[in-house]
Amino acid sequence: MMHNAYSAAPTRLTVLGSTGSIGVNTLDVIRHLGGRQRFEVMALTGNGNIELLAAQARETGAQLAVTADEKLYGALKDRLSGTSTRVAAGQSGLQEAASLNAEWVMAAIVGTAGLAPTLTAAARGATIALANKECLVSAGKLFVDAVKSGGGKLIPVDSEHSAIFQCLEERQREAVERIILTASGGPFRAYTRDEMADVTVEKARAHPNWSMGLKISVGSASMFNKALEVIEAKHLFDVTPEQIEVVVHPQSVIHSMVGYADGAVMAQLGSPDMRTAIGYALTYPTRPALPVERLDFARIARLDFEAPDETRFPALRLARLALERGGQQAAIMNAAEETAFDGFVDGRLRFLEMAEIAEAVMESMTAWPDASTIDDVFAADLEARRLATIEIGRR
Amino acid sequence: MMHNAYSAAPTRLTVLGSTGSIGVNTLDVIRHLGGRQRFEVMALTGNGNIELLAAQARETGAQLAVTADEKLYGALKDRLSGTSTRVAAGQSGLQEAASLNAEWVMAAIVGTAGLAPTLTAAARGATIALANKECLVSAGKLFVDAVKSGGGKLIPVDSEHSAIFQCLEERQREAVERIILTASGGPFRAYTRDEMADVTVEKARAHPNWSMGLKISVGSASMFNKALEVIEAKHLFDVTPEQIEVVVHPQSVIHSMVGYADGAVMAQLGSPDMRTAIGYALTYPTRPALPVERLDFARIARLDFEAPDETRFPALRLARLALERGGQQAAIMNAAEETAFDGFVDGRLRFLEMAEIAEAVMESMTAWPDASTIDDVFAADLEARRLATIEIGRR
Repeated sequence: MMHNAYSAAPTRLTVLGSTGSIGVNTLDVIRHLGGRQRFEVMALTGNGNIELLAAQARETGAQLAVTADEKLYGALKDRLSGTSTRVAAGQSGLQEAASLNAEWVMAAIVGTAGLAPTLTAAARGATIALANKECLVSAGKLFVDAVKSGGGKLIPVDSEHSAIFQCLEERQREAVERIILTASGGPFRAYTRDEMADVTVEKARAHPNWSMGLKISVGSASMFNKALEVIEAKHLFDVTPEQIEVVVHPQSVIHSMVGYADGAVMAQLGSPDMRTAIGYALTYPTRPALPVERLDFARIARLDFEAPDETRFPALRLARLALERGGQQAAIMNAAEETAFDGFVDGRLRFLEMAEIAEAVMESMTAWPDASTIDDVFAADLEARRLATIEIGRR
Repeated sequence: MMHNAYSAAPTRLTVLGSTGSIGVNTLDVIRHLGGRQRFEVMALTGNGNIELLAAQARETGAQLAVTADEKLYGALKDRLSGTSTRVAAGQSGLQEAASLNAEWVMAAIVGTAGLAPTLTAAARGATIALANKECLVSAGKLFVDAVKSGGGKLIPVDSEHSAIFQCLEERQREAVERIILTASGGPFRAYTRDEMADVTVEKARAHPNWSMGLKISVGSASMFNKALEVIEAKHLFDVTPEQIEVVVHPQSVIHSMVGYADGAVMAQLGSPDMRTAIGYALTYPTRPALPVERLDFARIARLDFEAPDETRFPALRLARLALERGGQQAAIMNAAEETAFDGFVDGRLRFLEMAEIAEAVMESMTAWPDASTIDDVFAADLEARRLATIEIGRR
């Protein structure tokens, strides 16, 4: 059951990963849309930042607050003494948070740690606002099946997939011809391959449009993020890899597009502010009023587009390879690339070698079949990281 | 009742103005979507081109063919002898065509001649695919009321309003904040006001993106077309004049946009091909498959935007003035400008004087109240043309 702007009963919701950037923005959206008047917070979960987690629980009156770090259980409990908020910790705490009967669950725990609780929420039929990429990249089929069998909805919240979701009209699904993912192209968009070979971590972190963490910035510079988004789009929108186009659009004003069989292309545009996508996921199929900066087209003045170069950005080619091969290739690509990212940050790898590591590990794990359980996903992830570490050592 | 791609019974339709550009494109769309298998043509109407009208009637098996020119009745009848198509002529013929029980009516008769038959079709509850601008510019309230009391739908088919219609989600109407009409800016976009003072008819007809008739090309060069579109948008989408923005976008790839209260902007993009909008109006809320050229963003490479300059393009200011004043000011503006256009083509007026004529006539007819009947519209139209002619004589 979705939240409706005019329903009397408050929407019960849970935020898995409430202390990260998406979580903080989610609570801000909830604040703007009426806070406790309209939303009943069932559970909030975080990791090390229990100060913020406790403050969020106090503000929202959350029924349950969970830290993933069991060692912080006592400290969190102290900070919430005198409130009605229960406290839990560790994997079992996260599972409990996911199990409470929230109608709407923001899945914003980063990494494979987000897999199990998000699957639990999906399986019981909650509407999942999805910000965790591993659910679709590493466990795509498992996760989509869980949503289907649970009977709930899946609404993406990263800007590109939210844009596509906003451009898709239910009654026009059969006419969808292609999905056009826009990519900023990152700081090395205009570099030659030779220039890219020598880039530093500092240069790679300078994303032109969004202010982001190091991991995402480097992923944007290598277009590895876009590669993962291609895989996510495949699972989210039930299209073939051939139906997914990537176009480089440096200004990132057009968040993504959908092309239809009548020649029309629908696009969603906006400022770099996650609250639009979060609000859309929260009040779908209506739209909330939010204090997001409005686009001024005369000031924007110009939007550019170019074809992505898969020679300089091999990640895009690897994504298509992973989809073509199937099995656990996408999970393997992701895990190997994350390990390679650590190698790049540590100075053990050069920028372009990250993709080489990912490809080598994918190559040596082609025999891994589709995951039947979440443990299969963890096993592939672990093995890919092990092989990537060995591969990095050889460089 | 709307046409559905999977309904068994063919959709009964009528094309008012089948021999013009919109009419020909409409029949082409019908051909692509299955022709007689899916559509039953009730009536086709044209004016002087009875050769084409007869051919269209033969191809579609139309029940009725009407020429607006009574003198051509016999000639049309001859050309359709041996067919089951009945023939009629003149205003009564057009009224008969509009009265037949087509579920869907393309309203593509140019000028005030299109008013009466379109009102008739609207009043009996047909879905109106609207390509005639006078219905909304000169008879906006009358026409919208006729659609409402008839209980049918109104779907715009010019590219800008169709784009807006495509960007509007029924369930998100309350969140609509602004409508962003794009304008090519025409051939004089980068001219100074002094340079515009001396332009010739030949220069004014050179529209950069669409191949169009002289009237529309000159209207594009003066942005008078855009002024009329602002007025149409006001009636079509039930917004205030302040909610309608015009942005100059020379490439015309974005056909128009809608801005929402969550900061999102939805846009519809496409090639300059009327068939997308016609097909959308025909199969709404689904989308048909049409052989329209697909957008290639890497090839498009660049989209530009700039604020319109109401000093060089006073038509936009006049449109807002007309909406602010109400009464029959929009009808008066349109009639005066059409008369001024003739003066420009004849060499009696200079380019920038067209707007001066329109403004002067509007000024002298501020006392004309809202039209209660179509005859009120005709009266205002006639008087505006009379005054405009006098005004032109004074230059």
